[in-house]
Amino acid sequence: MIPLARKKTQRSKATGADRVERKSEILAHATQLINKKGFINLSLGDIADAIGIKREGVYYYYKNRYDILLAIVRPTAEDLVNGLKTILKEDVPPRRKVELAIENHLMRFERAHAETRITLKDTYFQEDEGLMNKMRPIWEAYGALWVKLIREGQAAGEFRADLDPKVLAFGILGMCNWVSRWYNPKKRIAPRELIESYTAMALDGIAATSAMAKPPLRASKSA
Amino acid sequence: MIPLARKKTQRSKATGADRVERKSEILAHATQLINKKGFINLSLGDIADAIGIKREGVYYYYKNRYDILLAIVRPTAEDLVNGLKTILKEDVPPRRKVELAIENHLMRFERAHAETRITLKDTYFQEDEGLMNKMRPIWEAYGALWVKLIREGQAAGEFRADLDPKVLAFGILGMCNWVSRWYNPKKRIAPRELIESYTAMALDGIAATSAMAKPPLRASKSA
Repeated sequence: MIPLARKKTQRSKATGADRVERKSEILAHATQLINKKGFINLSLGDIADAIGIKREGVYYYYKNRYDILLAIVRPTAEDLVNGLKTILKEDVPPRRKVELAIENHLMRFERAHAETRITLKDTYFQEDEGLMNKMRPIWEAYGALWVKLIREGQAAGEFRADLDPKVLAFGILGMCNWVSRWYNPKKRIAPRELIESYTAMALDGIAATSAMAKPPLRASKSA
Repeated sequence: MIPLARKKTQRSKATGADRVERKSEILAHATQLINKKGFINLSLGDIADAIGIKREGVYYYYKNRYDILLAIVRPTAEDLVNGLKTILKEDVPPRRKVELAIENHLMRFERAHAETRITLKDTYFQEDEGLMNKMRPIWEAYGALWVKLIREGQAAGEFRADLDPKVLAFGILGMCNWVSRWYNPKKRIAPRELIESYTAMALDGIAATSAMAKPPLRASKSA
């Protein structure tokens, strides 16, 4: 009984700041491991080894690798949704909202590059139905907000109303999401350039005459 | 020695039309299985079961599941590259080439929906370095051709030269590739509508004024 009691005491001690710190440490190591080696063969033991603790030290906070994956990707997904909700409420024209929405999306490649890459590996989520059921409503809410934004612009006469809002919204999302496949944050292209280029392409296209016919949204190096 | 000799005779018989037919049958069943249940837990036995033959009947043609994956995705990828090479050689303006290139890409969702979906699951390929080494040059060649197309348009003064050609090319590719995540070919949106919408967005943007300021490429329902 003594070792068990001691164990219990240890556990009840692991609260507050310690607990938060250990959880962050586990997630930080797990994120790096998944990003480098994939999720398919990852075990709680691998994460424990990377931190230099026993497997039980991970198991105490997360009961399996799906719990860890959820803890990594859910905050990023919720931030995306909340950011877009705020943008939709702003009192600015739909064109500007699209720019802010692209910024809200792409700045995550700067702040949480590894988390975003992991989020976009759909095969990781298909493995576990419970995980998929928790993430799907967040992703669907995000897609629906994008469609709402395009519809608003169409209703205001700012965006082409002859094109399907879902096709357009998911086109912009695809443009932004694909960044996780090819973009190297260490190379010459800055996130700010991605945001400006994709806003320009989505709103006015790449044709030279479009850009010349219209004033820029605001001062930028392309203006 | 007798069973071995018989086996050898059976093998040498499996040539010509029979052989091609059995290989197509294996790939067709494997494609459906991978598309439905994923690649992670797929075995040659599962494929054999789906066809109703012995595992050896699959093993005779493909030595492992990576060989099968390669046989599924390589032809689609090579078709994409060859289609785009032909488009680049055509004597039409860069705007029209972009439309043809988007068509070349998206029509594969009609002709080879399952194959395209599988191709875009990058986690499948990261599992096996040999497979990745065979596919990477094809994908890189495809991306490079897209960048070449955008550069041509910029050099001709048709596309905005102040935006990075790779960022634009990969933006259009992302728009098209993301279709594999959300598009349901059984629902109301036809591939033709996707092609027209994404060509419109990439070239002239979704802003209403852009579309009105410029003549359409050719007669379409949006004109």
